[in-house]
Amino acid sequence: MTVSREVELEGHIIDSGMMGACFGIIMDLGGSFTVEAFDIGRHKDEESYARLLVEADDEAALQTIVHELHQNGANPADPKDVSLQPAPADQVVPEGFYSTTNHPTFVRYEGEWLDVEHMEMDCAVVVEDGPDGPRAYTKVLNAVEEGDRIVTGDTGIKVEPPSRPRDTGGAFGFMRGGVSSERPSETTIENIATAIRETKREGGTVLAVCGPAVIHTGAREDLARLVREGYVDMLSAGNGFAVHDIERDLYGTSLGMDTESLDHPRHGHKHHIYAISEVIREGSIAAAVEAGTVESGVMYECVVNDRPFVLAGSIRDDGPLPDTITDAVEAQNAIREQAHEADMVLMLSTLLHSVAVGNCLPSTTRVVCVDINPATVTQLLDRGSAQAVGMVTDVGTFVPMLADKLIEGAPGT
Amino acid sequence: MTVSREVELEGHIIDSGMMGACFGIIMDLGGSFTVEAFDIGRHKDEESYARLLVEADDEAALQTIVHELHQNGANPADPKDVSLQPAPADQVVPEGFYSTTNHPTFVRYEGEWLDVEHMEMDCAVVVEDGPDGPRAYTKVLNAVEEGDRIVTGDTGIKVEPPSRPRDTGGAFGFMRGGVSSERPSETTIENIATAIRETKREGGTVLAVCGPAVIHTGAREDLARLVREGYVDMLSAGNGFAVHDIERDLYGTSLGMDTESLDHPRHGHKHHIYAISEVIREGSIAAAVEAGTVESGVMYECVVNDRPFVLAGSIRDDGPLPDTITDAVEAQNAIREQAHEADMVLMLSTLLHSVAVGNCLPSTTRVVCVDINPATVTQLLDRGSAQAVGMVTDVGTFVPMLADKLIEGAPGT
Amino acid sequence: MTVSREVELEGHIIDSGMMGACFGIIMDLGGSFTVEAFDIGRHKDEESYARLLVEADDEAALQTIVHELHQNGANPADPKDVSLQPAPADQVVPEGFYSTTNHPTFVRYEGEWLDVEHMEMDCAVVVEDGPDGPRAYTKVLNAVEEGDRIVTGDTGIKVEPPSRPRDTGGAFGFMRGGVSSERPSETTIENIATAIRETKREGGTVLAVCGPAVIHTGAREDLARLVREGYVDMLSAGNGFAVHDIERDLYGTSLGMDTESLDHPRHGHKHHIYAISEVIREGSIAAAVEAGTVESGVMYECVVNDRPFVLAGSIRDDGPLPDTITDAVEAQNAIREQAHEADMVLMLSTLLHSVAVGNCLPSTTRVVCVDINPATVTQLLDRGSAQAVGMVTDVGTFVPMLADKLIEGAPGT
Amino acid sequence: MTVSREVELEGHIIDSGMMGACFGIIMDLGGSFTVEAFDIGRHKDEESYARLLVEADDEAALQTIVHELHQNGANPADPKDVSLQPAPADQVVPEGFYSTTNHPTFVRYEGEWLDVEHMEMDCAVVVEDGPDGPRAYTKVLNAVEEGDRIVTGDTGIKVEPPSRPRDTGGAFGFMRGGVSSERPSETTIENIATAIRETKREGGTVLAVCGPAVIHTGAREDLARLVREGYVDMLSAGNGFAVHDIERDLYGTSLGMDTESLDHPRHGHKHHIYAISEVIREGSIAAAVEAGTVESGVMYECVVNDRPFVLAGSIRDDGPLPDTITDAVEAQNAIREQAHEADMVLMLSTLLHSVAVGNCLPSTTRVVCVDINPATVTQLLDRGSAQAVGMVTDVGTFVPMLADKLIEGAPGT
Repeated sequence: MTVSREVELEGHIIDSGMMGACFGIIMDLGGSFTVEAFDIGRHKDEESYARLLVEADDEAALQTIVHELHQNGANPADPKDVSLQPAPADQVVPEGFYSTTNHPTFVRYEGEWLDVEHMEMDCAVVVEDGPDGPRAYTKVLNAVEEGDRIVTGDTGIKVEPPSRPRDTGGAFGFMRGGVSSERPSETTIENIATAIRETKREGGTVLAVCGPAVIHTGAREDLARLVREGYVDMLSAGNGFAVHDIERDLYGTSLGMDTESLDHPRHGHKHHIYAISEVIREGSIAAAVEAGTVESGVMYECVVNDRPFVLAGSIRDDGPLPDTITDAVEAQNAIREQAHEADMVLMLSTLLHSVAVGNCLPSTTRVVCVDINPATVTQLLDRGSAQAVGMVTDVGTFVPMLADKLIEGAPGT
Repeated sequence: MTVSREVELEGHIIDSGMMGACFGIIMDLGGSFTVEAFDIGRHKDEESYARLLVEADDEAALQTIVHELHQNGANPADPKDVSLQPAPADQVVPEGFYSTTNHPTFVRYEGEWLDVEHMEMDCAVVVEDGPDGPRAYTKVLNAVEEGDRIVTGDTGIKVEPPSRPRDTGGAFGFMRGGVSSERPSETTIENIATAIRETKREGGTVLAVCGPAVIHTGAREDLARLVREGYVDMLSAGNGFAVHDIERDLYGTSLGMDTESLDHPRHGHKHHIYAISEVIREGSIAAAVEAGTVESGVMYECVVNDRPFVLAGSIRDDGPLPDTITDAVEAQNAIREQAHEADMVLMLSTLLHSVAVGNCLPSTTRVVCVDINPATVTQLLDRGSAQAVGMVTDVGTFVPMLADKLIEGAPGT
Repeated sequence: MTVSREVELEGHIIDSGMMGACFGIIMDLGGSFTVEAFDIGRHKDEESYARLLVEADDEAALQTIVHELHQNGANPADPKDVSLQPAPADQVVPEGFYSTTNHPTFVRYEGEWLDVEHMEMDCAVVVEDGPDGPRAYTKVLNAVEEGDRIVTGDTGIKVEPPSRPRDTGGAFGFMRGGVSSERPSETTIENIATAIRETKREGGTVLAVCGPAVIHTGAREDLARLVREGYVDMLSAGNGFAVHDIERDLYGTSLGMDTESLDHPRHGHKHHIYAISEVIREGSIAAAVEAGTVESGVMYECVVNDRPFVLAGSIRDDGPLPDTITDAVEAQNAIREQAHEADMVLMLSTLLHSVAVGNCLPSTTRVVCVDINPATVTQLLDRGSAQAVGMVTDVGTFVPMLADKLIEGAPGT
Repeated sequence: MTVSREVELEGHIIDSGMMGACFGIIMDLGGSFTVEAFDIGRHKDEESYARLLVEADDEAALQTIVHELHQNGANPADPKDVSLQPAPADQVVPEGFYSTTNHPTFVRYEGEWLDVEHMEMDCAVVVEDGPDGPRAYTKVLNAVEEGDRIVTGDTGIKVEPPSRPRDTGGAFGFMRGGVSSERPSETTIENIATAIRETKREGGTVLAVCGPAVIHTGAREDLARLVREGYVDMLSAGNGFAVHDIERDLYGTSLGMDTESLDHPRHGHKHHIYAISEVIREGSIAAAVEAGTVESGVMYECVVNDRPFVLAGSIRDDGPLPDTITDAVEAQNAIREQAHEADMVLMLSTLLHSVAVGNCLPSTTRVVCVDINPATVTQLLDRGSAQAVGMVTDVGTFVPMLADKLIEGAPGT
């Protein structure tokens, strides 16, 4: 005895590979299928439609298949409402909870499709009734509260994986993923500059995620210019980034090395501790800027130009600075807010912070990832943003070239 | 007008390179020197002695030189007591505070040399009078309290950088540093096994610092054996390591992949969230072991064999588990305690946690660092333990081979 | 005015991604298409069939599209004979020559489909009439002779890209490509052992491509065992590999380091020059083995067990040995012969030689690529064998584990 | 019974570490020593002098020690003439031959010290009497001819390892070795530009060693400018570099990718074969330039500005071009000539060719090594040039920045 269910695929289901993926899933999981309807998009702009009858040996197998098809964009032909179960305790999910992808997602509740807010992967979906009607939104495990009505199973859920842009034209045309250390570097940087300019023109928000190598490699002044000129709207970094940025302002060194003469002044190894100590004395980075103690750099420009920043603590930090959020959950929540607000993210030489931000991004956000280590770039791009581009290069040459192209090379100025 | 001071060097000052380093420092910093006495160790076991008169143009330059000579093991010939200044506020160091190396250090207080306790780099030294007499110990910046009597300047301080073992014999003879991916792997693993055995025989404590790759690469069962058999006494890791270890116990997967069949069961991507949720429901890892929920693995063996573990949180964590210390400062303190207790440290495929542990280690602790990425191994060894060895290899083959050599290949059994 | 041509797709055209790829090519190149026939394989074992009418603005654009479709397995519905042009001079190809992929390829000549022999990428296809009828085969550029009848254009050519094995069962099921340093190492090695055993059982030939790191990491004795026991049938390496293997036999060192004690005997840096000098004195490696000068090692086992080897020279060689082929073209031809004969290739820690071998392989040959550097593994796998697997691990632990599993762990022996 | 010999050390023997190294060698090899005379250089510019009496158990042990001391710059106090033995056959060295370092070396022949010409490591030293008196020069193993009078043992040989420049001033002051991906990139590039300018001002010769990544990353036009403007005097590369450079001229692509639009034109994968075919048709690169077939690029500028180039073949080449030297020994000899003529070497993104050039360099040649892979940079710098600097960066941003600084930013213009 077999059980079956109808699922539908819509959109660029063939050239996006969606249809092939779905057939593969059914077969890999031991099911079979019949193509009941198939209306092929004959031209570039036409969408296709297919309806499959999926069969499996038992209900459990069928559910596994249908769950996987969901994750890949195939949705039940005859949708029912979503199933909801209350969370049994704080931070505990009900059996069979639906774990999100990072793609745009909809749940069917009382016959209506609700857009799930704050998409992010590995979350639970909570549905709640409010004064303005019902809403659905994601919650990470540690935010789940006893009694939250949590989506379980796969019924009544629609996922829409974005298709990769086929067209190579437009400012974001080059963002078709892939990583290589053997692409023309200047051309790629020019493309990234164009994409940032386009994002700003559309009123979008650019988030820079920065590792301390940005300071060590001498890119500090150019990143500060990008903040000042408004090409970077928000900053996400760790304690070390801010310490070395401020150390450079106070003592001319970064981790004890003079970034202009390349000398190591002999007391240099104390400078980062002094820098932290000075900021603690003032109370905060903003207070140190106001007091005139800190007079230049990336953090300085953030403060005087009112660009919000999040400094997340880690176990290898010295200090830390008073601005650093030492609790990982609290820091993650601050990062989450930034990530949800960003339209474009520049990840500059930091694996830890880039992973943290990337975990919170929906797949529709534009991401540029720059690192000298190809493994870092590959790992970050694997998280599947549809508009992501990786560049294996030196952040110490990348940021100056980018700043030149954005600030001096602005077309039409 | 010049100023001058006498400094002394003692020990294997020539073949350790100390004398050459000191001459270089004086000249680099614009000073000059006269060798007033020089008694050379003519044979292998004889120590040498040199007394230099160091001259500089002014007191500031001289202090800089003498400070640097200190860091490299040259000490004032006519020692005075250490200078002490009260900390002006919590977490604020007095001007000119002495920032520690990770070498054994002594301070002269009321005519006596005090051994500085808990050596660790980038710390302040606090001297306090107690009922059992005076003691000196390190404090990280965030532990400094207003009024702490903190060592400033360079007077009355002796540093003893350990000389690298010249002799290639003995269990630790191979620990002469250096990193290579082109050394004979099995022989190196055999040497590491011998060093662990020797450490245990001496009553020493072995700390394993573990990244999630230990689980992903299938080394979990062999690491669990090493814990069970008593070759690993303490564990330092992140939330992810414990989650994947427990996920493997509960669902047979690690980050969703079956580590035996290499399949990705289709619901696998939920497993790590479920694993966390289950442990939260029980209250802690120990409670989950006691309840019989968790029945195998590294964390299981730690619990049932009473091996203490520290799980430090980070901003990329899912969950986290209730055992994970989410506050970075608190986690660092827990790591610091482990580091001070350890006689030998195995760093297994984790940069973040290894750096955190390494920051707290004195230069006399034995360190073995294993990673597939040569840059990680190099970065960790640069922190200058005198008995450190790096191995660029696959932790998934390293741990099984090590366990075989320790448990099955034990000589004399 | 538009021009058009019919093309056909057959096989697992949807789940292999072929159909999606073809639709994408047509659209990317500015063409359009109508699906004239579409018969979908409804079940796992059924093949599908599609016939497309491809349209473009002019003949040039159409040819470009059709050429690309070819490369991806779509063939003209109404096949004509292949076009042939004589090569205008030695090593010069005619305008519009057809440059091969590494997939199985057929050309239509006088109404018959000829299987193109010695498939390899970036070659020309030569058709010649012989006493046994016509044959088609590849020629690299430097082998092209004036007057060779070379295939031009895209007419009359069929390419059959192998579909990736869907089924995870069977000895080669795990060979579904992909690379990771975070897969369970022992399980992967067990799978590779099974695949080698299966290849031998089928009467296949195993080629090992080896870099000097095999010797430096201490894997020499275990590789020698694999040669002796018949798991490795042919060897491809450079001069350095053989020199260090023989140096180890003569002096107990590899590049001057004792691979057992890890010492560097003080005259060690001369050993590799002496080793070469000794073999030159004897005349060849085989002569040195016969004379009893060389008594163990990989080269020794190759000689006494009659396993053919190719040693290719390079500009960084010392010596070289008399057996080393110093001319790059001649060496490439020797490698080409090995590559065409191999059924399974183990690439062990050498980028240069692995690329050289990989360039000559058809896409149907099984390839296992092992290197500690993920970039090397990725670069080698990108060359597109359908049955290729990459493993980021230490060759110094890999070879011993593989030898143990093959020789001691053979099931049923 | 012990045997002994006097050795002398002269120069900056303490701060260069030479004295420490020598003491270490004696002790490691089981010898002992007495310091018979020691005159310390009290100031920065004064040299030191030491005379040691080295003792060992037997003559063999003593010779081993003395040999090692040689390699590190300690020379017998009472020099005798060098020992010479005839080579027993072509390419065969006599027992006990002296294997060279890459440091300046002198041999004592008939009471006179001869400067050994063409210093290079791992060579034999040949002494011959000529019409202008005796001379000594290096020979690689394959150049040794039967009857050559070859230096054996360690008697009568002086080696002078260059001391590392202590002073940080001057154009080459920054060349104190070390590698880091975390140095300020722009400042380092500025320093390299200054060193090139200084080398040219001194009438020196700059050799660029280039990998194909120079073309792929879009640095071709800027490298061509450097050749045209006379900042690069000679070029060393492989077949692939020249092919992609010419492919870019003829078709606008590099390995099939348009380096400006980043598109892959659909016939692009044939371009490199066509490029080779076209040059073969013309007969050589120079002929193709003269015929107007090749009109731009690095090779073009080399031809029209008469900058000599060496293209060395390898087993992974397509073609190759008629200019490519396919025999490894012949190519090595051509590289050797370039290396001996160069005063400064830029190694740009090629491990194979950089190793080949580096093998032929004396330790006194200035070397700049640029690669995105830190392991490559480390491996190249380990070969011990005294004036070598490594930079982990992207050659696609490095070359344009360097060209800007040299050509546009020339001070005083």
